[in-house]
Amino acid sequence: MNKTIETILNHRSVRSFKNETISDEKVQQIIQSAQAASTSSFLQAYSIIGVTDQLKKDKIAELAGNQSYVAANGFFFVFCADFKRLQEASVMQNKEISAATESTEGFMLAAIDAALAAQNAAIAAESLGLGICYIGGIRNHLNEVSSILETPEKVLPLFGMAVGYPDSYQEQKPRLPNDLVFHENEYQNDKNQTKKKLLHYDDEILQYYKTRMNTKKEITWTGQVSATLEQTKRLYLNDFVKQKGFLK
Amino acid sequence: MNKTIETILNHRSVRSFKNETISDEKVQQIIQSAQAASTSSFLQAYSIIGVTDQLKKDKIAELAGNQSYVAANGFFFVFCADFKRLQEASVMQNKEISAATESTEGFMLAAIDAALAAQNAAIAAESLGLGICYIGGIRNHLNEVSSILETPEKVLPLFGMAVGYPDSYQEQKPRLPNDLVFHENEYQNDKNQTKKKLLHYDDEILQYYKTRMNTKKEITWTGQVSATLEQTKRLYLNDFVKQKGFLK
Repeated sequence: MNKTIETILNHRSVRSFKNETISDEKVQQIIQSAQAASTSSFLQAYSIIGVTDQLKKDKIAELAGNQSYVAANGFFFVFCADFKRLQEASVMQNKEISAATESTEGFMLAAIDAALAAQNAAIAAESLGLGICYIGGIRNHLNEVSSILETPEKVLPLFGMAVGYPDSYQEQKPRLPNDLVFHENEYQNDKNQTKKKLLHYDDEILQYYKTRMNTKKEITWTGQVSATLEQTKRLYLNDFVKQKGFLK
Repeated sequence: MNKTIETILNHRSVRSFKNETISDEKVQQIIQSAQAASTSSFLQAYSIIGVTDQLKKDKIAELAGNQSYVAANGFFFVFCADFKRLQEASVMQNKEISAATESTEGFMLAAIDAALAAQNAAIAAESLGLGICYIGGIRNHLNEVSSILETPEKVLPLFGMAVGYPDSYQEQKPRLPNDLVFHENEYQNDKNQTKKKLLHYDDEILQYYKTRMNTKKEITWTGQVSATLEQTKRLYLNDFVKQKGFLK
């Protein structure tokens, strides 16, 4: 196994960072890595906001569900879908592009562009000995987060990423069995098979939570994820995303 | 610069592959790497379909805009947003999760989950000496692609990825200047500054296309991207995505 795959497979989210800043050189390497990702039709339909102002970080941490590591880390990134810059480009060229940027296709494209860039940033950071944690919690209150980051229409913050020197590592959570996630040639849709595999995975996750070092609990995977999804969260996003010029 | 960042920065899309299959071991490493990515609330809301049936690959290549490298490669992956497996989990737990999976939040979550996994797969593949190319073109005719892959409701193919041993490498396309993509603390929205930087980037891209080895052309970045976005593509997706159980 090569060093890069080792880094990738060694991933776990880090939620406790040392009080140590990251050098500008490392931040630059992370951003450059993000920009090296593939981008649909060369559009580069995303922006990255680096939040270094501690007051802003504190506010975002509160909005994201009082997660301390959003405020206390080496660097905090927010990845955004961005058609604003492309709109400026189209004004320069006298073209009208709203129909494309407001479409479902446009939204998918920009969100995927941003996520590919973010994952490059994550791997680059981890290869430098840093830890990372994605922060979907910024979507709890995207209106307020947008105000703090002064993102205009056609720019939509999607998620944050806390980066820093790990203070402690959690154990890795076992992923779904390979043959539930990977399908050959056609989607495997045999309910009984799926159920059997999920029950087996439930046992594995129950065991993991019971015996891991930090915050032990007693829950299966199907128990956990169905409880999570039963609570319908962030329904305001349907309107907010439109208001920002996407998915109209 | 470490080996992993070197791999990331060395990325360019590969559109011509040797007629050589990829070993099962490598395919497994790629899938395992994909699964190691962060996933929102541990949901793992995506699936990966490996298309090995040449007839299916040929059909998908035709649907994706007759791109030969979709049919001729070492391996072809399709990454899907997937709430189907989570629905099975919720049935097992007697929970009702439709409101969550049909929401804008659910769609964002699943699409981002899939993209993070895909970029891990891309970097893993490149670290193994393979080349990759994302195939957004499958969204040209997602209904037909879904039929070929037999993806049920609540599973939405998002993009493909052709992987293989590179037959030829293209040059790297220069990315947008760092200070147009990266913003500190708040989104930089000075139109004059943006225009100035875009004009400078236009010169760089014009020069790149004029002097690169393959398929020279004479176009600027703003010219290219505004022409791309002026053509509103894939408008059917607004309905199709709903029909598949997302973004309702």
